[in-house]
Amino acid sequence: MERIIALMTDFGYSDGYIGVMKGIILSINPNAIIVDLAHNLPKFNIRYAAFVLYTAYKYFPKNTIFVCVIDPGVGTSREAIIIKTRNYFFIGPNNGLFSLILKEENVEEVRKIENRKYMMPNVSVTFHGRDIFAPAAAYLSLGIPIEKFGTSLTPDSLVMLPFNEPEINLTKHEYSCEILAIDSFGNVITNIPGDIFSHNEREHSVFLVKIHNERHVARRVKTYGEGRKDELLVLIGSHGFVELAINKGSAKDRIKVKEGDKIVLQALE
Amino acid sequence: MERIIALMTDFGYSDGYIGVMKGIILSINPNAIIVDLAHNLPKFNIRYAAFVLYTAYKYFPKNTIFVCVIDPGVGTSREAIIIKTRNYFFIGPNNGLFSLILKEENVEEVRKIENRKYMMPNVSVTFHGRDIFAPAAAYLSLGIPIEKFGTSLTPDSLVMLPFNEPEINLTKHEYSCEILAIDSFGNVITNIPGDIFSHNEREHSVFLVKIHNERHVARRVKTYGEGRKDELLVLIGSHGFVELAINKGSAKDRIKVKEGDKIVLQALE
Amino acid sequence: MERIIALMTDFGYSDGYIGVMKGIILSINPNAIIVDLAHNLPKFNIRYAAFVLYTAYKYFPKNTIFVCVIDPGVGTSREAIIIKTRNYFFIGPNNGLFSLILKEENVEEVRKIENRKYMMPNVSVTFHGRDIFAPAAAYLSLGIPIEKFGTSLTPDSLVMLPFNEPEINLTKHEYSCEILAIDSFGNVITNIPGDIFSHNEREHSVFLVKIHNERHVARRVKTYGEGRKDELLVLIGSHGFVELAINKGSAKDRIKVKEGDKIVLQALE
Repeated sequence: MERIIALMTDFGYSDGYIGVMKGIILSINPNAIIVDLAHNLPKFNIRYAAFVLYTAYKYFPKNTIFVCVIDPGVGTSREAIIIKTRNYFFIGPNNGLFSLILKEENVEEVRKIENRKYMMPNVSVTFHGRDIFAPAAAYLSLGIPIEKFGTSLTPDSLVMLPFNEPEINLTKHEYSCEILAIDSFGNVITNIPGDIFSHNEREHSVFLVKIHNERHVARRVKTYGEGRKDELLVLIGSHGFVELAINKGSAKDRIKVKEGDKIVLQALE
Repeated sequence: MERIIALMTDFGYSDGYIGVMKGIILSINPNAIIVDLAHNLPKFNIRYAAFVLYTAYKYFPKNTIFVCVIDPGVGTSREAIIIKTRNYFFIGPNNGLFSLILKEENVEEVRKIENRKYMMPNVSVTFHGRDIFAPAAAYLSLGIPIEKFGTSLTPDSLVMLPFNEPEINLTKHEYSCEILAIDSFGNVITNIPGDIFSHNEREHSVFLVKIHNERHVARRVKTYGEGRKDELLVLIGSHGFVELAINKGSAKDRIKVKEGDKIVLQALE
Repeated sequence: MERIIALMTDFGYSDGYIGVMKGIILSINPNAIIVDLAHNLPKFNIRYAAFVLYTAYKYFPKNTIFVCVIDPGVGTSREAIIIKTRNYFFIGPNNGLFSLILKEENVEEVRKIENRKYMMPNVSVTFHGRDIFAPAAAYLSLGIPIEKFGTSLTPDSLVMLPFNEPEINLTKHEYSCEILAIDSFGNVITNIPGDIFSHNEREHSVFLVKIHNERHVARRVKTYGEGRKDELLVLIGSHGFVELAINKGSAKDRIKVKEGDKIVLQALE
């Protein structure tokens, strides 16, 4: 049965761990279409992985099976789960990885992966990507019904990481927000929804950025390419959030922030 | 319709950007065969990407569709284009990425990508890999004719980066050349054609390398493995150009050069 | 003919070298299923690559063709070979890459790759991944019999790297061992077989780790997640060997070791 299995891990590309998972999937279902989503995700960073999954999953074909292994708690009491939503399947540890997609997707079913029949013969306590998640994805791709994998969980037993909403003062044009993620270009992605910002800031083109004890000025643009050398820019990024960026440079290095940091944006002129 | 789509970007492997492009392609054409050419290309470095594409494309099957997204000018006036050559299709921004392949391939047709029908419903100004290039490749792979994508461009409207030719004094055995590229091994690839060098230097085995204000001596070899520890070597590399290298080491770190630097090679003995 | 070809190299993801190999394979056999095993292996490190291959290969479907190119001696006298074992094919340089898999797999046939018919038309001395190994894999995947590629080699002509066995004093509970590999998480993998250790150390939970002139104390756990912040742990890793690790951290950075280093583990309490 042809079926897309998209893999997302923090395993990097200098070990055999991803290769192992692919080998297992193809051994169980030779017709699986394996897609590498991203494997160099920052190690142990569940929050960032949740963001990456959130920004990518909806572009995949219906019924894609996502296998997500950012799993510092492997072998401990955290559950191995399969989530079935209206459009997709998500497989991985119940550690918050699915926090953001669950804001958008309707959960139809959640199952613990418990059935030894759909695991590798010897299950380690250190590599469930190999022993549990890869085989579960492969068997699911063969059409094994989700109920066969284990007992049902209620959606509210899914671990949710705190992703705060920004505090927005529309009349003062002030946005107290949080750094949602920083991508590999150094673009600093806030949690301010782009559409609200666009609508409210039609007349402003310069913004004050307050971060820690520092102040920066950012010019509002539409595209990265409009920025002058080293100029801090504010724009609506491709994820739909307000973003700080530098044309051909790294806003992260310039304003020295990290994920989760609080910042304030305020219209100046 | 089965069709190879080869992807080349500077997106790295720690974000979801490549995953998004793959998801879109497979949503439009589930039978597309997606090949990762390279995604860790140095960010914003159009020149290096042009070189990588040039060294790789000709080994792919006829009719392969190359999607190349090194696109610092995304959303600005630079055009999104499809180039049809006798053997291949190339999709990406018109920013010089195709400078080197155009020296070899006969262009049959160039089109701007303008037809909204073959784009994502909402086109951002920050991620055309997702909104324009990936869907264009997928629709092209389904057999949509190139004319449907937009208006025709003449080949001379294609942006060409300056890639200089070396100045060669055959009788003095002196080569004033430029660093074309430096690969991840630290091999320093010049723009001196290997066949000219081979033919003219049959009797020389030691070369002076003048770079900035420094002088180095390089021994001519055929293979990397002939080099002694830390010895600077000159050889014909796999791309067909004269290359400086160190056996199990990095010539780049040793002689401290970067792409575009001018150097002079001169036969000593 | 559908056939899995798994690629493993030290080429990294910032050059076109892997793309070239994939293009060649698909040009020769459009139905080959190419699987990226790992391409960011530490450059020139044959020993580590041998370990990665060893930990991954057995999870792939029968008849998978592995192409392994960690090849600092390219173009020198080292042979290009195909090994047929009961279950798999391995293609690469005869430089020790296959040292560890040969401990497990029964060799049925070894051939030099000599037949120009199954190489690229112009064979360089600097890139056999492109000119010899990729085409050999593709032709093999089409069903060309191994005998056609070149003359037979006896298994004892295969280069074997020294991978030492640990010296174990069961009654003193002392293990003089070697660092087999260090993965990208910084987990330090020794050559102590996990089953022997498990069986002999049922009553010990604290171990002394002697390395260079330093002493460390490591607590025995089952899973990474049990570790306190920065606490050195000893556990049976997913490869089946005794491993030193730190929960969400790098044991390598903590105890400053490298592959091949000798260390001693001794039960304390």
